[in-house]
Amino acid sequence: MHTDWKEELASFRQLVQKMKSYEEALGVMYWDLRTGAPRRAVEGRSAVIGMLSGEMFKLQTSPEMGRALQRLSAEDVQQQLEQVDRKMVEECKKEYERSTKIPQDRYEEFVVLTSQAESVWEDAKEASDFAMFLPYLEKIIAYTKEFIERWGYEGHPYNALLDQYEPGMTTGQLDKVFGELRSRTVPLLQKIASSPHQPDSSFLKRSYDKEEQRKFSHYILEQMGYDFAAGRLDESVHPFATGLNPGDVRITTSFRPDDISFSLFSTIHEGGHALYEQNLSQDLMGTVLCTGTSMGIHESQSRFWENKVGRSRPFWRRYFKELQQAFPGAFDQVQPDDFYRAINVVQPSLIRIEADELTYNLHVMIRYELEKALFGGELQAAELPEAWNAKYEEYLGVKANRDAEGVLQDVHWAGGAFGYFPSYSLGNMYAAQIYHAIQQSLPDFEGLIERGELHPIKDWLSERIYRFGKLLTPAEVIQHVTGEPLNPQYLADYLEAKYKDIYRID
Amino acid sequence: MHTDWKEELASFRQLVQKMKSYEEALGVMYWDLRTGAPRRAVEGRSAVIGMLSGEMFKLQTSPEMGRALQRLSAEDVQQQLEQVDRKMVEECKKEYERSTKIPQDRYEEFVVLTSQAESVWEDAKEASDFAMFLPYLEKIIAYTKEFIERWGYEGHPYNALLDQYEPGMTTGQLDKVFGELRSRTVPLLQKIASSPHQPDSSFLKRSYDKEEQRKFSHYILEQMGYDFAAGRLDESVHPFATGLNPGDVRITTSFRPDDISFSLFSTIHEGGHALYEQNLSQDLMGTVLCTGTSMGIHESQSRFWENKVGRSRPFWRRYFKELQQAFPGAFDQVQPDDFYRAINVVQPSLIRIEADELTYNLHVMIRYELEKALFGGELQAAELPEAWNAKYEEYLGVKANRDAEGVLQDVHWAGGAFGYFPSYSLGNMYAAQIYHAIQQSLPDFEGLIERGELHPIKDWLSERIYRFGKLLTPAEVIQHVTGEPLNPQYLADYLEAKYKDIYRID
Repeated sequence: MHTDWKEELASFRQLVQKMKSYEEALGVMYWDLRTGAPRRAVEGRSAVIGMLSGEMFKLQTSPEMGRALQRLSAEDVQQQLEQVDRKMVEECKKEYERSTKIPQDRYEEFVVLTSQAESVWEDAKEASDFAMFLPYLEKIIAYTKEFIERWGYEGHPYNALLDQYEPGMTTGQLDKVFGELRSRTVPLLQKIASSPHQPDSSFLKRSYDKEEQRKFSHYILEQMGYDFAAGRLDESVHPFATGLNPGDVRITTSFRPDDISFSLFSTIHEGGHALYEQNLSQDLMGTVLCTGTSMGIHESQSRFWENKVGRSRPFWRRYFKELQQAFPGAFDQVQPDDFYRAINVVQPSLIRIEADELTYNLHVMIRYELEKALFGGELQAAELPEAWNAKYEEYLGVKANRDAEGVLQDVHWAGGAFGYFPSYSLGNMYAAQIYHAIQQSLPDFEGLIERGELHPIKDWLSERIYRFGKLLTPAEVIQHVTGEPLNPQYLADYLEAKYKDIYRID
Repeated sequence: MHTDWKEELASFRQLVQKMKSYEEALGVMYWDLRTGAPRRAVEGRSAVIGMLSGEMFKLQTSPEMGRALQRLSAEDVQQQLEQVDRKMVEECKKEYERSTKIPQDRYEEFVVLTSQAESVWEDAKEASDFAMFLPYLEKIIAYTKEFIERWGYEGHPYNALLDQYEPGMTTGQLDKVFGELRSRTVPLLQKIASSPHQPDSSFLKRSYDKEEQRKFSHYILEQMGYDFAAGRLDESVHPFATGLNPGDVRITTSFRPDDISFSLFSTIHEGGHALYEQNLSQDLMGTVLCTGTSMGIHESQSRFWENKVGRSRPFWRRYFKELQQAFPGAFDQVQPDDFYRAINVVQPSLIRIEADELTYNLHVMIRYELEKALFGGELQAAELPEAWNAKYEEYLGVKANRDAEGVLQDVHWAGGAFGYFPSYSLGNMYAAQIYHAIQQSLPDFEGLIERGELHPIKDWLSERIYRFGKLLTPAEVIQHVTGEPLNPQYLADYLEAKYKDIYRID
């Protein structure tokens, strides 16, 4: 006997709300562990986190969930669902199918493996010893290949991995956009390297009072429209933002005593992520749609605020005087334009997370190409260091002397997060395309920044991106905001214009 | 068919560990809400807290729990259980029976009622309007009476309430010990009032830098043996301690700019609670025994550290100089002995939480007598303000002009926590009895304090009290530590000796 679909919908919504509650509780505990939980808390807390994660997974893959999804995705029912419910069913069905295709014991083995691997990776990186990490990496790749087969995929096996972070993204599309971007980045990089007009950035590495850095971070977040009644700013080793619910979106940053840029741009970057989560529509509360639509779109917002706003000339025309006042003596004789050029210095380097806006994408492309080859069967894990170094030499002209500065630098593979890296560059491309659109829509965009009127910018993005959460796919967001699909030329144009000006090329 | 009891035991332990995990997650979220969660977090977080509490309650009263308890409390099985498991079964059975005797819907109504009542109480206190609060109070009392009938009790109905906070305590015992204590407190109070040697405490109300207060609190906690690798110190409006697990026991305090005593003694008080929780035996981790054995014994530890150590003469012989240095100018011309007398000023007053060590117990006795009369049927809720004021006049010689300073001052009744108040004075009596025992056992007790050697004191208490958690009942703890049952004469003797000296009586 069929239950009424409206009853099924009510219990489906409850099930989802329960999953979201587990997720929020876990979010609070992760935030706590990363911001100041006592050292000895960890052992006990890990058991709690394991239990709650397990309960959440059980709900997600429960027979009740399966039954509800089957009933609610029947065509006659689907047509009667409201948009939010229809989209929720779609999302949960995708997750349900993904999760139930992997046998419980295989999944649990994988979780244990990656948690061991993360700790081995730390030691291996410390010792710069790839051989130490290799057996774990090989196993993680083998499990991942097995999972890809179980999930199924269209075209390239790597598409199954991409889809986890950027729904709908494919190697075909990435090859095309990365190819176009690279063909315009590499010549630009060469011109920059040979320019006689290299900016002086020595004043970014002086001594900066920590309390003043904190105040300045707080001030800039307020200027951006970050709502402190729905968030807070703390310190952690690696900066992050976490949206527990739209009324509680927290940011961390890190204050380096001898590097003013680090806290400044970490704060603005995480602030961009946070604006997205704070401005999700209230209607999405307690649903699976109450978060950013993809890693790439999320990253586009952190990078829009960090690079298009925070590293722009008008921004520092407005805020440089206040920065000078906050750090007396540190910026004597420095003009806003000197500061602007200094924070945009381009320098090919070995380490992704320290890369500038231009070379960053080359770091990402290298990882993408290696991952694709691993899962396409053209590359073995043991060959990674050599392949890594060859690509760094080819794309960036730099060579790692130690694997710690090369193939061992990122934690992602130890955690099994293959397919994640492209999100970073997708974020840059989306951000540039949105930047183009907002300038069309708000012709006085630069003037707004120069007058410190950042709220209209936040409102523009909220109206078109933030409030929708996962109600729109990443491709729909980009189409809807910019009137065309992902197009890497916007990023290439933006980078060319910006760096030709800074390095006085042509 | 009977399952093997060892299997039943294994699943019982898992069930308990799961309950404890929910409890720990809830603890983290409560701590977070009280120490700095953004204002707008609360709405979403409340739903999460409600869900997790519900899951915990479900486990506690689940058919699996019922079955396991029945099997494991069979006499033949019980004899084979180890002490920890036997005691766990006992504890969980008690909770199971209590909880399953109340119909789910009645319990949920009660939870909603008390949560509304707490908010009405706040407004009523603000407006000093008892009539506003009365209908809620009447309903809470009616529910509580119904629950008492459902639970059952021996002797006085109030015993069912006492047992929640102080297992095994009865009105018979309390009437006796409170009677003895009162008969010695009231004459002492009269002598103090008429003493010409009133200490000067004006230097406790000057101006004290908040950062210095924080540092001093931190320092004193370290001196007490509080482990900062297993805890942290934060600020909250009302100071509290929370033991999430023995590796994570957090304290809060509150720094008042014009009152040095407040943070000082709040910190030491909460530090005492925390030492208990930090020093629970590792063997009890993940069991229901991994906490203090009762509210009274817990309070005995906070008060032992606050009053027997922190408000003692040798303590300030050791630490006064450092206090002076931390707050330059605030204590000029003040001698350690002046400070000792000032922090022990006795002054009958209206507000319990601001009461001194001597009059505090009278505040508690008043509440106890009123609660007992309410549940004994001799007093109606509507008669409370009058009865309250009459007792304050009789015991303390003070009269509230407004209910906000009288019957409306405490939140306990709004939350339905009848039976809780006696714990505070039980704590004082236990603490004095333990104080007597430790002086017998460590004859150089005062010398240890005067030399700042507080660790042997912490170790003594850990060895005899802290490590056992709920493995011993409160009565067993006191018998085991002091060689006799609860005896109020120790507190009376201690108070007489202390205050006769301070007020130079006889």
